[in-house]
Amino acid sequence: MTSIEHLNPIKAPKEIVYQALISQEGLGKVWTPKLSVRPEVGAINEFDFDEGYITKMKVLELSENERVLWECVDSDEEWIGTKISFELIEKDGITDVVLKHYDWRELTDFYRFCNYHWAMFLKRLKDYCEGK
Amino acid sequence: MTSIEHLNPIKAPKEIVYQALISQEGLGKVWTPKLSVRPEVGAINEFDFDEGYITKMKVLELSENERVLWECVDSDEEWIGTKISFELIEKDGITDVVLKHYDWRELTDFYRFCNYHWAMFLKRLKDYCEGK
Repeated sequence: MTSIEHLNPIKAPKEIVYQALISQEGLGKVWTPKLSVRPEVGAINEFDFDEGYITKMKVLELSENERVLWECVDSDEEWIGTKISFELIEKDGITDVVLKHYDWRELTDFYRFCNYHWAMFLKRLKDYCEGK
Repeated sequence: MTSIEHLNPIKAPKEIVYQALISQEGLGKVWTPKLSVRPEVGAINEFDFDEGYITKMKVLELSENERVLWECVDSDEEWIGTKISFELIEKDGITDVVLKHYDWRELTDFYRFCNYHWAMFLKRLKDYCEGK
């Protein structure tokens, strides 16, 4: 098993970052405008990237302003069964966002491609939360 | 031991990407303008990120238009002894750049921070090689 792990400091309170990660508006701006999101444990969030399939994320944990955990229940075969967590640690007005996409079965070219794109996701999250 | 691995497709011939990765001009645009680079095996390339120390990369391999390999001989303590490779695979006018930063002793917050920033490096490399 292998994981993708990033840390990106965002100049915004953790409440702002948390709202971006659980809301239709935030994820619509940061990830894809074609989505269906409910901020409830057990909900199945759906994301459409125009790839011919829908990426479905089951919400496993919502610890307010601290941590979000999803399990991928449908998507590219390599993603199914993997988990994605976002941990928020605020200090002096900066929120460190730690993204972990774990339980990859193999370190493939698709893993490498997704690793790059998770950083682009975090860049857009940063710009969105910082009002850029 | 753990590694950072990315794949980013660039719409440019591999010769363009290779030149960017071995030249003072290319790395000056993509990484830091404060640098000293020689495209020779055995050279010690120096990069200054205004962090109070110089990052020094020994050039271990230069396979023309195919692969570049560096060993970090001085930098942050977590980087010393790690290696960085860039592999270029061109198909139909697109060059896949595979970046591997390997031999990390531990998966730390600095690893996570650098993982994010290697993606930003690849984004700038893409923009530079695509003339953006």
